[in-house]
Amino acid sequence: MAGPVPVNRLSLNQATIKHATVQTAVDGCARHGIESIGLWREPVREFGLERSAKVVRDAGLRVSSLCRGGFLTGPDVAAALDENRRAIDECVALGTDCLVMVVGGVPDRDLVGARQRVADGIEQLVPYAKQAGVTLALEPMHPIFCADRGVLSTLRQALDWAERYDTGVVVDAVHVWWDPELDEQIRRAGSRIASYQVCDWLSPLPEDVLLGRTLPGSGPIDLDRMTRHVAKAGYRGDVEVEVFNAELWAADPDEVIAEVVRRFHSVVEPAL
Amino acid sequence: MAGPVPVNRLSLNQATIKHATVQTAVDGCARHGIESIGLWREPVREFGLERSAKVVRDAGLRVSSLCRGGFLTGPDVAAALDENRRAIDECVALGTDCLVMVVGGVPDRDLVGARQRVADGIEQLVPYAKQAGVTLALEPMHPIFCADRGVLSTLRQALDWAERYDTGVVVDAVHVWWDPELDEQIRRAGSRIASYQVCDWLSPLPEDVLLGRTLPGSGPIDLDRMTRHVAKAGYRGDVEVEVFNAELWAADPDEVIAEVVRRFHSVVEPAL
Repeated sequence: MAGPVPVNRLSLNQATIKHATVQTAVDGCARHGIESIGLWREPVREFGLERSAKVVRDAGLRVSSLCRGGFLTGPDVAAALDENRRAIDECVALGTDCLVMVVGGVPDRDLVGARQRVADGIEQLVPYAKQAGVTLALEPMHPIFCADRGVLSTLRQALDWAERYDTGVVVDAVHVWWDPELDEQIRRAGSRIASYQVCDWLSPLPEDVLLGRTLPGSGPIDLDRMTRHVAKAGYRGDVEVEVFNAELWAADPDEVIAEVVRRFHSVVEPAL
Repeated sequence: MAGPVPVNRLSLNQATIKHATVQTAVDGCARHGIESIGLWREPVREFGLERSAKVVRDAGLRVSSLCRGGFLTGPDVAAALDENRRAIDECVALGTDCLVMVVGGVPDRDLVGARQRVADGIEQLVPYAKQAGVTLALEPMHPIFCADRGVLSTLRQALDWAERYDTGVVVDAVHVWWDPELDEQIRRAGSRIASYQVCDWLSPLPEDVLLGRTLPGSGPIDLDRMTRHVAKAGYRGDVEVEVFNAELWAADPDEVIAEVVRRFHSVVEPAL
């Protein structure tokens, strides 16, 4: 059947092959026909910022996002803001307009205060980000991470801030799948969805709950339904497959990427 | 200072000393001046239902709740409803008007369907419970348990059902503490709060996340704030200390109960 050649909207988040260098990740994308990549600051720093930007550019890849800014709940606000401005600069250098924000946990017993510090920090960062052409993509984190990583716990809460400060949000399947309000909040998010990330929930959870993820289609998340809602909300960007999983990290990156491509085509793409 | 002798509103949930018999738990309450106990069906069955009822009654204890009914998401609806009716009967036998409902997880990939089965099941059980004088206390579970234990994930969702079917709700600190809407949903709950359970979040989580709890005051939960909101909503019942924790389970029950009493007096009672 003739028709326009569809853009492949799969993006490989490099955390899925955590122990690979930026070069290996970029080569893997090229080899498997993936046109987009999600980068992390630490491996980019390790490989070199300019060097990373160059290999990504030379390979013709889009950079769907940079992970991650945030961590705004600690005592040293000025240092946290500086770090976030550096992350915004790195987005510009890497050619992405999306900085994923993991906002930080509860350093004490004052969750309400921690959330206020996040809101204040975001308000301060938005002008700098806008001038750089970068969207701060607020990522609601699964409540399992509220204590140590992210006091932003629901898409509703993320959108309350996103609308107030004019930012974007991340819809990451593993963080939001349980939310009884998910469908309506995705609808509400509309054009504020700056990043859509998919993987599945690993049950039972492993010892390190950070690694409680598995490939799309291997867990209880209804990714077909979620993806249809995200598409209906108007999202047209790349879809990152981002899986933190000890077995995948121990496997051959090339085989992992091949499986990521298969899962994307079978589980996600039909609903886009 | 003269005045009315305050009722001690501490209730020992027997899961806090999981390996003790009903007799040991009841004796411990008596020894430490605790006037109320939260029971579980399995140890009650092990000790004998009538025998449990008798030792509790003879000790003059209130039974603040029975854990647990629920598990309404599986394929055999009729069997699940029967099991819940038996749990309601056990409430009557034990002299408690509060059955804690843990509604069940997602057996497949259909979270929306699982939630509908819960709603349908509750609707069917309410007349039987009312006739028995038992309140079905819907317990929102931390989203970490959505896959395998409880698709009821927020107090808002619990109250939507509680208002529709005329049931109660449980406010369990460890399940709801992260919720950005907590204060307003507790206010909304008002007289529907059928049980208030406290413990703290254990961070980092242990290998078995079910045991990710610790004694009130040892974690990041602002129990003072939560307790004040629960009191302001009008709750006048007993407050269960319910801690699943491997170290506590391995310790001498009598020492655990002594520490529970201290924590209740220092962390919870001042806010009641």
